[in-house]
Amino acid sequence: MGASNDTTKIRGRLLQLLCNAGFAGPVFPVNPSQQTVQGLAAYASVLELPQAVDLALIAVAADQVMGVLEQCQQRCIRAAAIYSAGANGVPIGQRLQDQVAAFAQRSGMRILGPNCEGFFDAERGLVATFSPTLTRIPLHRATDWPLRQRISIVSQSGAMAFALYGKARAQQVPVQHLISTGNEADVELLEAVDYVIADGRSRAVLLFVEGFHRPERFAAVAAKAAEAGVVLIVAKIGRSNAGQRAAVSHTAHLTGADTAYDAVLRAHGAIRVDTPEDMLAIAAAVSAGVQPQGKRVGIVTTSGGAGGWAADICEQAGLEVPAFDESLRQELARIIPAYGSANNPVDVTASVVEDGGATLLRILQLMGHNQHIDIGLIVVSLVSPERMTQMEAPLKAIYAQTQRPLVFHSPGVVAPKAMEVLARVGGLHLDLEVFAKAMLALSWHQQFLHERQAVSQPPAATHNAPTDHSQPSWPANQGELSGPALREFLTAWQIALPPEALVRNASEAATAAEAMGFPVALKIASPDIAHKTEAGGVALDLADAAAVAQAAEQIFAQVQRHAPQARIDGLQVQRMMPPGHEMVIGVVRDADFGPLVMLGLGGIYIEVLRDVVFAPAPLTAAQARAMVLQLKALPILQGVRGQPAADIDALVQMLVQVSRLAAEHADRIQEIDLNPVLVYPAGLGAVAVDALLVTQSQAAAPSAAQQA
Amino acid sequence: MGASNDTTKIRGRLLQLLCNAGFAGPVFPVNPSQQTVQGLAAYASVLELPQAVDLALIAVAADQVMGVLEQCQQRCIRAAAIYSAGANGVPIGQRLQDQVAAFAQRSGMRILGPNCEGFFDAERGLVATFSPTLTRIPLHRATDWPLRQRISIVSQSGAMAFALYGKARAQQVPVQHLISTGNEADVELLEAVDYVIADGRSRAVLLFVEGFHRPERFAAVAAKAAEAGVVLIVAKIGRSNAGQRAAVSHTAHLTGADTAYDAVLRAHGAIRVDTPEDMLAIAAAVSAGVQPQGKRVGIVTTSGGAGGWAADICEQAGLEVPAFDESLRQELARIIPAYGSANNPVDVTASVVEDGGATLLRILQLMGHNQHIDIGLIVVSLVSPERMTQMEAPLKAIYAQTQRPLVFHSPGVVAPKAMEVLARVGGLHLDLEVFAKAMLALSWHQQFLHERQAVSQPPAATHNAPTDHSQPSWPANQGELSGPALREFLTAWQIALPPEALVRNASEAATAAEAMGFPVALKIASPDIAHKTEAGGVALDLADAAAVAQAAEQIFAQVQRHAPQARIDGLQVQRMMPPGHEMVIGVVRDADFGPLVMLGLGGIYIEVLRDVVFAPAPLTAAQARAMVLQLKALPILQGVRGQPAADIDALVQMLVQVSRLAAEHADRIQEIDLNPVLVYPAGLGAVAVDALLVTQSQAAAPSAAQQA
Repeated sequence: MGASNDTTKIRGRLLQLLCNAGFAGPVFPVNPSQQTVQGLAAYASVLELPQAVDLALIAVAADQVMGVLEQCQQRCIRAAAIYSAGANGVPIGQRLQDQVAAFAQRSGMRILGPNCEGFFDAERGLVATFSPTLTRIPLHRATDWPLRQRISIVSQSGAMAFALYGKARAQQVPVQHLISTGNEADVELLEAVDYVIADGRSRAVLLFVEGFHRPERFAAVAAKAAEAGVVLIVAKIGRSNAGQRAAVSHTAHLTGADTAYDAVLRAHGAIRVDTPEDMLAIAAAVSAGVQPQGKRVGIVTTSGGAGGWAADICEQAGLEVPAFDESLRQELARIIPAYGSANNPVDVTASVVEDGGATLLRILQLMGHNQHIDIGLIVVSLVSPERMTQMEAPLKAIYAQTQRPLVFHSPGVVAPKAMEVLARVGGLHLDLEVFAKAMLALSWHQQFLHERQAVSQPPAATHNAPTDHSQPSWPANQGELSGPALREFLTAWQIALPPEALVRNASEAATAAEAMGFPVALKIASPDIAHKTEAGGVALDLADAAAVAQAAEQIFAQVQRHAPQARIDGLQVQRMMPPGHEMVIGVVRDADFGPLVMLGLGGIYIEVLRDVVFAPAPLTAAQARAMVLQLKALPILQGVRGQPAADIDALVQMLVQVSRLAAEHADRIQEIDLNPVLVYPAGLGAVAVDALLVTQSQAAAPSAAQQA
Repeated sequence: MGASNDTTKIRGRLLQLLCNAGFAGPVFPVNPSQQTVQGLAAYASVLELPQAVDLALIAVAADQVMGVLEQCQQRCIRAAAIYSAGANGVPIGQRLQDQVAAFAQRSGMRILGPNCEGFFDAERGLVATFSPTLTRIPLHRATDWPLRQRISIVSQSGAMAFALYGKARAQQVPVQHLISTGNEADVELLEAVDYVIADGRSRAVLLFVEGFHRPERFAAVAAKAAEAGVVLIVAKIGRSNAGQRAAVSHTAHLTGADTAYDAVLRAHGAIRVDTPEDMLAIAAAVSAGVQPQGKRVGIVTTSGGAGGWAADICEQAGLEVPAFDESLRQELARIIPAYGSANNPVDVTASVVEDGGATLLRILQLMGHNQHIDIGLIVVSLVSPERMTQMEAPLKAIYAQTQRPLVFHSPGVVAPKAMEVLARVGGLHLDLEVFAKAMLALSWHQQFLHERQAVSQPPAATHNAPTDHSQPSWPANQGELSGPALREFLTAWQIALPPEALVRNASEAATAAEAMGFPVALKIASPDIAHKTEAGGVALDLADAAAVAQAAEQIFAQVQRHAPQARIDGLQVQRMMPPGHEMVIGVVRDADFGPLVMLGLGGIYIEVLRDVVFAPAPLTAAQARAMVLQLKALPILQGVRGQPAADIDALVQMLVQVSRLAAEHADRIQEIDLNPVLVYPAGLGAVAVDALLVTQSQAAAPSAAQQA
């Protein structure tokens, strides 16, 4: 609707691109003032279309959109895309946005946009976009590509969608679907992703996200992706203040808290990228079937200098470039010149140029089957296409059989013909930094898939719930919660707190102290004594039973003297905890994603180093352990300078319990803060010394199940 | 020498490339078995050349090299390049390397190589290389390029040299000189750099370094570069273990300690890069005249999504994307549509496409003169060349006048014609991550140049040397040095140690303690008492003069009882230092670069966080302060959680003094370790609580000046 002959304008280009793409179905331009548009018979309105149609592409002025939609409904059209953004500088206001949303609800029609740049399905040649990028880089019909090589793009930003498309094409990566969702009055990003996964023709989906409209859908979509082996590669903007300003001003979305997105994407196996280059490198690698099972890179090069730089870049990024095993080293030493190097990186020297690549091919074969490396990197100049052309057939055979990904890197520019050969043999060329980042991301993703398979059951939220099944009634307090009520609640959830007991006399105090271990503190328990120390009601650092008994007698006597009228409940005996590694465990409730568990290094360094990790609740033990492994301060917990390793198992267990508690009471808890959590040497446990729980101020009413 | 008709071989391609490049001077092929080579009259030997020549290019078999060199000397040829690396798989051994070095020494002939890939001078068309890259990417004669745009490449690796050349050309960056130094029997890397700087036709030198042969030359070369405004962009491999393996196996160099290179490069204003992409981005920016005076980026975009991602990437890398000042914001609000954003990033919306770029140009003009930003970044699609073509003339005018660098980034692929327009107007296009890294590096470099200018005199090593000019005689001890001798030495260098005094009686002890402040410790001073505590000879935590006097009497009495025969020198009064920020200051002697000063966070975190920085001695106060600013833990020193800021001035002063001491006694000191150095709140100083000095085991004989 709004079709025009002027292909320099959106309305004209939309029709032009659709016709050029070779779409098989009939196309009907609607234009009230033209008999034909771009050589096709035009119709004055939707109502006059000669037959039923499946899809309406709406590029009329913003104030005409609702009228056109009503007509579409009359003609039983079930789907539409609205490109209209505004007319003559008038912005498409919230009003149209709301009207379209309400219409979609009411009519059941599925609507993309408004203010979207459209979509395409490359296999069908269904091109429903006005993007000028497609006039420069025409669609390559996907029919002749193996399904396993295709990727798709789903983006809230039309500009980024087509930018990524252009770059993917430049890297020989076939794009099956592109969907730009615009203002998302109806169809939103995660539905589009869901569609692409279900469609089954994409190995990866590149997502450009400003903010999920329905964040609660993400877990299910990510699970489908993992099930189907589809890699989600996500750019989520709004990490920086300025990025948030941009996202907020740009779209209807309020950019969600970045930390929560980060934690949730990671927890569900989506790869979050920092830059377009990383995104495209990972996409290219997935398209080439690269699935590294680890981080060990074997490098072979014709230039010691280039190979050395490659090794540096790999290791700095977090990959490993290990020395080769003896048997591989011996085999290599036999086939490369004496002035080369059989070590990793393998320097075959420029002599490979002379032998038509035979040496290089033999080494690729060796690396592709070596158990001690996970990835082969071939650093060799591709400035001349001859080498690759000579090697095409044997290279294809090697790629067909290799058990390890083999990736090329040319230090200089790459001849387009060399790139074409690589694409034909199923190979891949990457620059070094993105190579390193892509291999890290994909080996992490492989590990995620393995662990996901290993977990046959999902975490049972009640498994380690209060053991006696007499779940403590949820403390009814509003606001902050601490003291005995919180203590009872956390203890029932098996979260270790310092031992504490209320006793009536000196003899009971000594017995209780012996049970909990020394040193202990004693404090008078009385509702009438505010300043316990001044009343002589406190004794610290009591090292044995005799000292406890003596101190208890003394406290009772002093208090009796100081406040003879006070009601005395007894004596509180508390174990004084020895120093340990100071950690912090917390829970914050994210408006989009619910409770997130936080783990951080305690003390002064937590703020400076920001050594804090988040994950959505509940956590499996493996997920909790993964959080610990993410800490920068991990080596401290593992033991440095001959200190013993900390009880990471106990820390993991506490994380799991806190996460289950948080998930169980997701609607009631605003925040939990266990600070400090002291972690002792392995086998000696972890204790939450101080605890605070903040209840949801506007808590959702507990469900019937929770009340029962 | 060794010229051949077969241009697929090194010997043939060398001649072919030279002839094709249009070199003006005469060329004489030497080949004993041919009358002509590639159409030129050939000569049987150097001795038969018809006239004097300036340069010999030697590509004969390795075992003939020395003979040819001797002939060159007979013919008074003053310069040669040796390409020969080995014949029939026989490596060029250390023998030839040594022979060439000795010959160069003896003859005074300057020799490049052996095993080098040669060099070119683009302006003269003097191409002396066999690199196949030049057959694919022929030399662009530099005569028509402004001098200020040219860069040069100097590399120990021939492969990397030409790889960088190819990529620079692909980015429209003109390359003036390329010099590959190979095995460096004579001419070495830093001499080549020196030549390029003196030549005056390059704005930047790209250095690819495996290891400096003559590290001591670097400071002077870097100083010349700074003087001439030439930016040194350095890739130094060997950061990783594998990188070191590669460098060592590849060349005759032993890769130097990476930490020392890092510190020395930084200290002399060279930009060290991590990847080829960073290197080329910085080179392209220098070539385009980009000199950012700070880190504040103003972003203008036609896509909110792309602009938001750009902002994220900039801020994550360490640039700032500040909100605009009110006046700029108002001016922008007047010229962009209401549904755009006048904030930073400025979203001008796609409407700029319609107005021929007028809005965009006006914004560039505003940003180019705004005092509150340092760099303008224009995020706009260049997939179609039309926009740039339309804007060429006004854009050229803007670039000619702008006071701030203006850099383009296209989220999608860039049309080659758009790139050409940018090159013609003096503009620049960069990908986002390399943009951020390049701007950070160049703003650091600008700051380096400013600070260098501000320092009118070099640091005077004797300025803060021992004030009474009665320099303490260098302790003659071998091995470790500590105790009173070290104390006296450090004190003379004004390095603060905890106050300490030797007194004879209780009254003197009280007086001394009052002078140094409380609390203090007392220790009996006696050569005859090994176990002072057991002899009753120690008292700690004495809080006032009375306590000191009483404890002193008591110690004398107890020692008298315990060891009546012991000789008593008196009592040692030591100030007990209160807790402060624990830092470590050290000196290590690097075999290549001499003494390096180390500063690190103390305690358990130093190892885990590796929060340690190095710089070569001596340091100016500004350089010492820059070290402190490099610490990750800087916020701790600046005061977090309401804690007072630490006395950074005192820390800086101590660094300076340690560095001067280390520079003064460079040949005598192997290592200094001040650990911990306690840094107190601002104004309260810093104290080296423990100190150790390790002397050079094979110390160079002190010079006459030092002995006087």
